[in-house]
Amino acid sequence: MKNIFSYYNCNYNILPKIKSPKDLKNLSYSELTELCEEIRRCIIFTVSKNGGHLASNLGVVELTVALHKEFNSPNDKIIWDVSHQSYAHKLLTGRYDVFHTLRKEGGLSGFTNPLESEHDIFVAGHASTSLSLACGIAKAELLKNSKNNVIAIIGDGALTGGMAYEALNNAAELKNLLIILNCNDMSISKTVGTVSRYISNLRINKTYISFNALLGKHLKKIPILGSVVEKTLNSSKEAIKKMVYESNFFSDLGYSFLNSVDGHNILELKKAFNWAKQAEKPAIIRVFTKKGKGYIKSEKNPELYHGVEPFNINRGILKQEGNLTFSIVFGRYICELAKKDENICVITAAMGEATGLFEFKNNFENRYFDVGIAEEHAVTFAAGLGRSGIVPVFAIYSTFLQRSYDQLIHDVAIQGIHVVLAIDRAGIVGQDGKTHQGIFDVSFLTSIPNIKIYAPSTYNELKYMLKNAIYKDKGLVAVRYPKGEELKNINKNNETYECAEYFSYGTCKTTIAVTYGILFGQLKIAKEELLKNNKFNITILKIKEIYPISEHIVNKLKKYNEIFFFEEGIKSGGIGEHLISKLIEYGYTGKWTLKAIDGIFVEHSGIQKAWENLGLNSSGIKSTILNKTIYRTDINAANI
Amino acid sequence: MKNIFSYYNCNYNILPKIKSPKDLKNLSYSELTELCEEIRRCIIFTVSKNGGHLASNLGVVELTVALHKEFNSPNDKIIWDVSHQSYAHKLLTGRYDVFHTLRKEGGLSGFTNPLESEHDIFVAGHASTSLSLACGIAKAELLKNSKNNVIAIIGDGALTGGMAYEALNNAAELKNLLIILNCNDMSISKTVGTVSRYISNLRINKTYISFNALLGKHLKKIPILGSVVEKTLNSSKEAIKKMVYESNFFSDLGYSFLNSVDGHNILELKKAFNWAKQAEKPAIIRVFTKKGKGYIKSEKNPELYHGVEPFNINRGILKQEGNLTFSIVFGRYICELAKKDENICVITAAMGEATGLFEFKNNFENRYFDVGIAEEHAVTFAAGLGRSGIVPVFAIYSTFLQRSYDQLIHDVAIQGIHVVLAIDRAGIVGQDGKTHQGIFDVSFLTSIPNIKIYAPSTYNELKYMLKNAIYKDKGLVAVRYPKGEELKNINKNNETYECAEYFSYGTCKTTIAVTYGILFGQLKIAKEELLKNNKFNITILKIKEIYPISEHIVNKLKKYNEIFFFEEGIKSGGIGEHLISKLIEYGYTGKWTLKAIDGIFVEHSGIQKAWENLGLNSSGIKSTILNKTIYRTDINAANI
Repeated sequence: MKNIFSYYNCNYNILPKIKSPKDLKNLSYSELTELCEEIRRCIIFTVSKNGGHLASNLGVVELTVALHKEFNSPNDKIIWDVSHQSYAHKLLTGRYDVFHTLRKEGGLSGFTNPLESEHDIFVAGHASTSLSLACGIAKAELLKNSKNNVIAIIGDGALTGGMAYEALNNAAELKNLLIILNCNDMSISKTVGTVSRYISNLRINKTYISFNALLGKHLKKIPILGSVVEKTLNSSKEAIKKMVYESNFFSDLGYSFLNSVDGHNILELKKAFNWAKQAEKPAIIRVFTKKGKGYIKSEKNPELYHGVEPFNINRGILKQEGNLTFSIVFGRYICELAKKDENICVITAAMGEATGLFEFKNNFENRYFDVGIAEEHAVTFAAGLGRSGIVPVFAIYSTFLQRSYDQLIHDVAIQGIHVVLAIDRAGIVGQDGKTHQGIFDVSFLTSIPNIKIYAPSTYNELKYMLKNAIYKDKGLVAVRYPKGEELKNINKNNETYECAEYFSYGTCKTTIAVTYGILFGQLKIAKEELLKNNKFNITILKIKEIYPISEHIVNKLKKYNEIFFFEEGIKSGGIGEHLISKLIEYGYTGKWTLKAIDGIFVEHSGIQKAWENLGLNSSGIKSTILNKTIYRTDINAANI
Repeated sequence: MKNIFSYYNCNYNILPKIKSPKDLKNLSYSELTELCEEIRRCIIFTVSKNGGHLASNLGVVELTVALHKEFNSPNDKIIWDVSHQSYAHKLLTGRYDVFHTLRKEGGLSGFTNPLESEHDIFVAGHASTSLSLACGIAKAELLKNSKNNVIAIIGDGALTGGMAYEALNNAAELKNLLIILNCNDMSISKTVGTVSRYISNLRINKTYISFNALLGKHLKKIPILGSVVEKTLNSSKEAIKKMVYESNFFSDLGYSFLNSVDGHNILELKKAFNWAKQAEKPAIIRVFTKKGKGYIKSEKNPELYHGVEPFNINRGILKQEGNLTFSIVFGRYICELAKKDENICVITAAMGEATGLFEFKNNFENRYFDVGIAEEHAVTFAAGLGRSGIVPVFAIYSTFLQRSYDQLIHDVAIQGIHVVLAIDRAGIVGQDGKTHQGIFDVSFLTSIPNIKIYAPSTYNELKYMLKNAIYKDKGLVAVRYPKGEELKNINKNNETYECAEYFSYGTCKTTIAVTYGILFGQLKIAKEELLKNNKFNITILKIKEIYPISEHIVNKLKKYNEIFFFEEGIKSGGIGEHLISKLIEYGYTGKWTLKAIDGIFVEHSGIQKAWENLGLNSSGIKSTILNKTIYRTDINAANI
C-alpha cells in the first residue's frame, strides 16, 4: 500500500517547478509528456485523499498542458465550462504547493475561482455557461481593441444545455474566440439526445495540418523573408481549410470548424491551436479525450469516478459501499411505486445515477427520461406529460432547479398541472461549495402560487411524503431532501406513516425552537444540551409540510412567549420570514428570533463545518437561544 | 370612417357558422379562401378596438385554417408557441361569438387557455416552450398507444431560445410529432443570430408532393385496390422523400424535414400535412408566412403592429403618438449616458423596441446587443462583459427575467460582477394577463445575496436611480419600473435628484401606510380621501431603494403604532415580508397589516381594474386601512 501512495505522491521532477504557465514555454516535448504523467499522478493521489472530480480531470491533462503552452494566460482567457475539470489548470497556474488543500475548508475550490488566481476567469459550477461568458469577454476584448484570445472548453454533455446553443447563435462574429468541444461521450451520465449523436456522427476526416501553419508565426518575424513566407502560407491555409472543413451545422453557423483532434496528443493540439489563431472566423475544435485516462479503474468506469468521495487508490471505489442515503431511498421507493403504477414517469437532467435512478432506468426504461443537461426543457416536458394524465417525477439537485424557475411558474403552476419535484441535495452540500449549495430553492419555490413543499428528515418521511405528493396532492408539489443520510432516533417511539404537518417535542410552554429538514438533528442536540448543561428546558418543533405555512402550526406557535427559528437556507424569502409574517397576521405578540443564511454565499467545507460557520450547528443554535432568550427565569425543575 | 368599420365588421358569411373545427371539413377551397378573408377582417376590427397582437395573427390565418381542416382537434393536439398568434384558432374553435371580448376582463385571453376551450392545450405567453410541451404530450400519447398527432407551431424567432433546442435534442424519437417552423424572419424585433440565418439559408428546393400521397388515405379504404395503391404509394413516398429531403441540421438530427411551404397557400399546406402524417419520423415543415398580411399598414411595418393598443383602422397607428412612458425615458436617458461614456453597453433579448432602445440601437450600434429570445445567455453574456470592465445594462420585462434566475445567482452575484438590470413592466401589466404580470421579480431577486433593487415612480427617479446603479453601486443592481407613465404631483415641491431611501408625507405619528413604485399614486389618493371623507389622518411612505431593507426605514417605521403595507407583487418573499421580519428583529411591537398578491395568478384586465380586484386601488387601500386600524381614536383636527 505504501508503495502505491509513494508512486502517486512522489518523484515529481517537473511539476513542482511550474510556478506559472510561463514555465511551460521552454519545455521539450518529452518533458511535457513527463509533466502530464506527473499531473495525473498528483490528481489521482489528491482526489483519493480529498474526494473530488476524477475522471473528467484525467481526461484533459494534455489538453490543459497544450493550452497553457500555446496560449498566454491570463492575457488569453481560458474559460472552463463547469470547471470541475480544472485541476490540471490549477496545478499549472501556481497552485501546486497548495493542491493538497483541494476542496478543504479554506483551501482550493474544486472549481475555478478568480479569488484564487488571475488565471481563473470565472467562478463556475453549473454547466453550459462557458460559451456565453466567453462571448461577453471576447466582445469586450474586441471593444477594447485587444489582441487577446478567448478560449472556452466545453464538453459534449454541456452542449445539450440550451444556453450553449443561445451563445452559439450569438458568437459567430467574434474572431478572437476559440471553442474547444471536448468529446468524451459522457457528461456525468452518458450524453443523451440527437444533438450529441449528430456531433459524434460528424464525418471524421483524417486531418492534416501543415507544419507551415505552425511555423508561420515565427517565420513571419524575419523581415522580407517573412512576407514571402506569409504569402505562401496564405495559399497553403486555403488548402488546409479545404482539407479540414466540411459543411456541418457549426461551419454553416459561421465557425471555422476543425473536426477531429486527438486530445491526448500534445503536438496535434499544438497544430490545431495555431490553426485556430490564424483562422479568420471564430473557431471550433473538436477534440477527443478519454475520461479517466491514466487510472485504469476510472478508464473502465468513468461514471463511477466522476465525482468521488475519498477512496483507496489500490482497491479503487467499491460499488454500493457505504450507507443508505436519501438518494438511494428515493430511487428504490419510486421503483416500488412505479411497479404498481404505470402512470409514474421519472425525468432526470443528466443526473440519473446521482439522484438514485439507476434501478429505475434498468427496470422501467420506457418511463425513464434523461433529457440531458436541460433543466428548462425537463420541467416543461414534465408539464406536457402531466397535462396528459401521466404523473411526472422530476428528480433534480436543488441548485440546478434554479434553472427552471420560469418554467415552474409558466408551464406548470399557471396551468395547475400536477408535477412532482424530487429535490435532492437541498441545503448545505459540502465540498462542492458555493455554486452548488441547495439554499435557494425554498425562497424561489415559495414565491410560486399554489405550490406545496415537504421537507423530510427521515427515510420513512421521504417515502410518506413522496406518496402523498404523487397520490394526494395536486398541482406543483416538491419534496426536498438533503445530501446524505437520515436523522436517527428523532421520533423513535411514535414514528408512523401518519404525516402530521409538524412534530414537536418538549414540555416547555414559553420557549419553542423551530426548524425543518435535517437541521432538526442539530436542534435536538441543542435542546438536550440546554437541558443537561443549563437546566434550561425548551420545546422543539420540526415542520414537515413547510409550505404553505400551516394554520395549525401558527396556532400552536402563537401560544409561546418566544420563538426561535433556524433555517439552513437563504433568510430572504425563507420559511422563517413567511412564518413570522403569518404569526403577526394571526396576532402573535411574543419574541421572535430568526437565524438563517443571510445575504451570503456559502463556501466549500464539510457540511457539519458549514453549519458551524453559519451558527446552525447544535452549539451555534444553543448559543443563539441562550443569548437571545428572555424567558430563562420561568424555568424550574418541575417543568422538566 | 363608418364604411371602413362596416367593411371590417360586417358581411361575414361563413365565419359565424363555424362552431367547431368540424364545420371546416366540408368547405370547398373557395369557401376556405373566403373564410380566411373574413377571419382577417374580424381580427383587424377586433384588435383595432381592443388592442392586441395584430401582425403575427394576420400571418397565420391560412395556416390555422389548414391545420384545423386537416387535423382533428382536440384529439390531435395543436400547440401554439407563445400563443399570441392564436386568434384565428380561437375564431375556428367556437369562440367567434365572444371574440369581441378579447383581452377584456372576464373575456377571451389574448393567449391560449385550456379553461376557455378544449382546443387550447396550454396556457402560454413566454416563447420557445411549445416544443417541450409537445414532446411531453407526444410521449404521453405514445405511452397510451394513441394515434393522435401532436403539432407544435413555432416561429423562427422563438427558435433562438435555448429551450427549443433542448427539446429538439429530445424529440427525434416521437413519430407522432409535427413541428411547424413558421418563418417570417421576425419575432418581435427582427430575428437575430446565426441560427436564424442558417435556417433562412437552407437551400430552398422547389418541392413537389405527389397528389398520390394526398389521396392515399382515401384510396386505401377501398378493398383490394387499396393494397395495390399502397404499394405504389410506398415507392412513390421514397421518391417524394428524395425530392424534398436534403441533409441539414434538422434532418441530421433525425427529423423528416420539408423545406419550403407557402404558408398562405391552403392546398400546399394540405399536401404538406398529409406528407407529415405519413412520415415515419417526427416531421418538421418550414412554412413561409408574411407578418401582417392583409392589412397593408401592418404588412409594411409588422414590428409596429406586433402588439398594439386600440387604433383607428383607417388611419393606422401613428408612430410616436402618445405620452412619455418609463420605457421611452429609460431609452433616452441611457443614450444620454452612453454618449458620454463608452463603457456602457446595452443588451436586449429580442425586445429592443418595446424596452425603448430604438434610439440606442441607431446611435450606438456596436454597443447594442440583441441576443434573441435568450434571456439566460443574455445575463451570462452580460457577466462576461462586466468581468472585462464594461458596464452592461440588460433591459428586460420583469416576467421574462424569470428565465435568468440561475444565471443571476451563478454567473453574476456569486462572481460579484457589476451588471445593471433595467426591469420594465414591473408590476401589473394589464391585458397580457397572467403569463406576463411582473409580480415575481421582487421575490426571486431578493433571494440573491448582495443585490440592490430600486423602484422609481417618476421619470426623474428612474434617471437618478439608473445613474446610481451604473456609477455608484457595485455587483448586481436592478431598477424596476412599471408599464406606462409616471406618477404626477407626488412630491412636487421638494422633488430633487437627491435619492433618499424613502419619501414620506403626513403628520400622523401613530398610523403609517407604506408602499413602493407606481402604487404610491393609489396610496396618496387613499390618504387624501381618508382625510377628506373620514377625517382620518395617516402618514404615507414610499420606499425608493426597496432592497436590502434600509435601517433608516426600519427605525422610522418602528415608532408608529400601526403600519400598513401595500405591495403590487407576490406576498411570499415580497418587500412586505422582508420588512416585517426586520421590524420584529428591531423590536417593533405595533400592529402590522400587509396587503399583497397572495398565492394567485392575476388575470388580464386593465391595470386599474386589476388593482381594484386585488384591493390595491385607492378605495381598496382605504377600506383595508379603515377596517384594520385600531388607532382611529387618537385622531383630531389638530393633527391634521
